[in-house]
Amino acid sequence: MAGFGPGNPELLTLKALSALQQADAVFYDNLLDASYLDNYKAEKVYVGKRRGNHAYSQAEINNMLLEAALEGKNVLRLKGGDPLIFGRGIEEYNFLAERNVEVELVPGISSAMAAAADALVSLTARGVSSSLAFVSGHDLDKLIIPRADTLVVYMGASNQKPLAKIMIEQGWDEATPLVVVRNASYKDAETRRYTLRSIQESMNLLPSPAIMIIGWTAAETSQQLIKPAV
Amino acid sequence: MAGFGPGNPELLTLKALSALQQADAVFYDNLLDASYLDNYKAEKVYVGKRRGNHAYSQAEINNMLLEAALEGKNVLRLKGGDPLIFGRGIEEYNFLAERNVEVELVPGISSAMAAAADALVSLTARGVSSSLAFVSGHDLDKLIIPRADTLVVYMGASNQKPLAKIMIEQGWDEATPLVVVRNASYKDAETRRYTLRSIQESMNLLPSPAIMIIGWTAAETSQQLIKPAV
Repeated sequence: MAGFGPGNPELLTLKALSALQQADAVFYDNLLDASYLDNYKAEKVYVGKRRGNHAYSQAEINNMLLEAALEGKNVLRLKGGDPLIFGRGIEEYNFLAERNVEVELVPGISSAMAAAADALVSLTARGVSSSLAFVSGHDLDKLIIPRADTLVVYMGASNQKPLAKIMIEQGWDEATPLVVVRNASYKDAETRRYTLRSIQESMNLLPSPAIMIIGWTAAETSQQLIKPAV
Repeated sequence: MAGFGPGNPELLTLKALSALQQADAVFYDNLLDASYLDNYKAEKVYVGKRRGNHAYSQAEINNMLLEAALEGKNVLRLKGGDPLIFGRGIEEYNFLAERNVEVELVPGISSAMAAAADALVSLTARGVSSSLAFVSGHDLDKLIIPRADTLVVYMGASNQKPLAKIMIEQGWDEATPLVVVRNASYKDAETRRYTLRSIQESMNLLPSPAIMIIGWTAAETSQQLIKPAV
């Protein structure tokens, strides 16, 4: 089981690439650049949840992985981002390990790192941000927002405005800067900057898939960058 | 500027590898497997902070990078982990960008992901952990601990016991499980499990470099793993 990273195949690790080259079967989900897999000989099975008609339940995915492994195939489960952050990699891992299937976990670049690099925003920064939290923004009813200096929101594209409102209600400064990155790691990545206040009135939001990076580090960096050259 | 990842060269990204192959000069820091760089023709300059006699200040590193770039060299700044998490990558980035040096940021696998994979602990897990925070544990006086479901502590090896004590004082359940991973991503990676209570009496701590993963996800996973096979 390997993380593919945020989407751009250049962010695949050498270890994941090696697994891909050796695989007999690849079960993959929402990698936007899935045509990349055509370079490899393995049988490909799409088991993601975004394209509608091919949606499998988690139990079905587990069983498909198990069956392929029991057939003696070298199976690669390729997950977007990192398998252990906001995926359900551990459920698949546990299901297989409990059935005595040997599984190796290969980390991947998570979207937060790619979004930070695209937005030129450091996730931690000396004197500005010494803690960093990741949450999922797709279900605001269940969301508990940690008080970290920098907050990264995965899967929050449809909740950008209500999320900012909740954060202000919970005591975050309404002038707190934030940056939203769509298609992190891709050549067509887009970045927009707001504050917790301004995003609530914006007519110009980015649609999914988007990552939000919220905190003063988002502004500090840009202020430093517009300093005149020495 | 590229992240090398947690140490094992197999976790280098394809993009970082390509930068390494094309570089005239590589400025690198604490990559434990630095002999890996011998495979590449670039001039290598160690600018890390752990080996004592070769310690450079941040200003000196900035200037060395600038000078090499102004000489027209293709310069790779290779940082352990990810350049934008608990490194000072953004300071180097800003210094160079303000001086009109073209810099590209390439994300890397951060130690948390590698430690999680080694410990078989998911950083988030459905029903157990929906938020994840990263802090640096090297200066407890300045530490503010976010209330995330899972807390990952970087650079906390020398503060394992006092950190657990502080967390209990701040209201964390003393039965909260935690796992410490030394040499994450390496073949000789070591993993030890405790609770916030038990680590305070342990005679068996791992020395630096170690990552701590604290939260119920650390236990849930291991409990599932010891279920009998079906």
